[in-house]
Amino acid sequence: MKIIQNIKEMQQEIRYSKSLGKSIGFVPTMGALHEGHLSLVKEAQRENDIIVMSVFVNPLQFGPNEDFECYPRNVEKDAALAEDAGVHYLFYPDASEMYPKPLSVKMLVKERVNVLCGAKREGHFDGVVTVLTKLFHIIQPEKVYFGLKDAQQIAVIEGLVEDYFFPIEVVRVPTVREIDGLAKSSRNVYLSETERAEAPALYESLKRAKEKIENGRDDPEEVKNSIKDFLSLHITGAIDYIEIYSYPKLERVEKLQGEIIIALAVQFKEARLIDNIIINV
Amino acid sequence: MKIIQNIKEMQQEIRYSKSLGKSIGFVPTMGALHEGHLSLVKEAQRENDIIVMSVFVNPLQFGPNEDFECYPRNVEKDAALAEDAGVHYLFYPDASEMYPKPLSVKMLVKERVNVLCGAKREGHFDGVVTVLTKLFHIIQPEKVYFGLKDAQQIAVIEGLVEDYFFPIEVVRVPTVREIDGLAKSSRNVYLSETERAEAPALYESLKRAKEKIENGRDDPEEVKNSIKDFLSLHITGAIDYIEIYSYPKLERVEKLQGEIIIALAVQFKEARLIDNIIINV
Repeated sequence: MKIIQNIKEMQQEIRYSKSLGKSIGFVPTMGALHEGHLSLVKEAQRENDIIVMSVFVNPLQFGPNEDFECYPRNVEKDAALAEDAGVHYLFYPDASEMYPKPLSVKMLVKERVNVLCGAKREGHFDGVVTVLTKLFHIIQPEKVYFGLKDAQQIAVIEGLVEDYFFPIEVVRVPTVREIDGLAKSSRNVYLSETERAEAPALYESLKRAKEKIENGRDDPEEVKNSIKDFLSLHITGAIDYIEIYSYPKLERVEKLQGEIIIALAVQFKEARLIDNIIINV
Repeated sequence: MKIIQNIKEMQQEIRYSKSLGKSIGFVPTMGALHEGHLSLVKEAQRENDIIVMSVFVNPLQFGPNEDFECYPRNVEKDAALAEDAGVHYLFYPDASEMYPKPLSVKMLVKERVNVLCGAKREGHFDGVVTVLTKLFHIIQPEKVYFGLKDAQQIAVIEGLVEDYFFPIEVVRVPTVREIDGLAKSSRNVYLSETERAEAPALYESLKRAKEKIENGRDDPEEVKNSIKDFLSLHITGAIDYIEIYSYPKLERVEKLQGEIIIALAVQFKEARLIDNIIINV
């Protein structure tokens, strides 16, 4: 595996790979790699000749009160994990390489953002699409891999790729879960023992909702209430939201039909957990 | 020459050309082709295997009071000229192909726009960068060709390409002129006989200014005044602006040094003419 920090050098390697007719699969990350990221690499390996992973903690997608400074960074560990997983190129630029000067053209996300976690993170997705547009142009992948754990991010990126005809396929990779169903997340370590025991109820509530819908329930309010009732019985954390939208447009639906997402967020003492399920009704 | 209206079909042709290792030169236009456009094609031919020209009157770059509806359209004539010039693919999508639905991500130009013609055309360059980003992703050229007649447009596009690391070289092609120096433009036909006789004074005033600067004058105000004096003596049209900026950043300069642009606009009775000269001091 080659570790590359410089854009020009990365572009040279890409040109070389392309001249050999190799297909490129791209896994963008902010580092702090866990099994979720590695499942993206595994999926990318099945479908591409060359796997490029980027590790870049993108300052533009952090709000003024968010944790940019203390976001976990450990490139040696990430590099070891990436190499073991079979990544060919680890692209690891610093902020001055990616943002050498103020942007003369800004990108603003106008749809799919004012709901779910995006509602509370103004400008977050503007930063996401800006850095991804840069990375897509540097890496020029045929396919790019994102985890469905962050389903809103995938929805926004699918909008970006469609709007601007990027010659790239966005691949949605299923959420990786613990045996008991809890979605893997770097934040799970912040759960107390009791909270950790309760946490699988998040996914359980989503699975039960899915079953209800498959059995014919089509009223979003009724389904949301059933999730709320289930969670209230099984967790001590505070429900932040339980929402149902069309997917990937993230628009309100009166009746459950087509592709929909049920998403929820729960605030535990030291950790805020999110989870979701996408259903085709 | 193939005429292609469909994005998917254009993408297939591009993929095929690329699989053969062909380099692609791209000439984006709004049609109504004249010698200026054909000089872009000629330049592109010297440097690329495949020449793609787009003809697309982009609704997004016209203001509400501008001439989108009556902008000249004659694709048969354009196609004949393009084919004669040696274009391989004429990409001629309609607006519903390029804008199938409202954009979920918008692009806004923040620099290089509030001067020269851009100052009076709010949103114009937002439309330009939006459509070019789409076209760049569809055509995937190694090089793209623009005429220096519209020097502000080139400045904005160079900003776009640098900001987002498009793997594309922007080629600046010199303005094509009549024998007497008048910059070629579709609008020259609207000049009266007298105005047409006066019009070469625009370029003459720029050349004289260039000479002055090369002889050591470095005060922008003094140079602008000398142009104004010269034009006042030689034309009946009204001077809209005479400006000097750094190029391509289009920032005010106190002293004439580095790469600078002298640009002017003159309003004749039925035609507004622009011209400019770029100097490396």
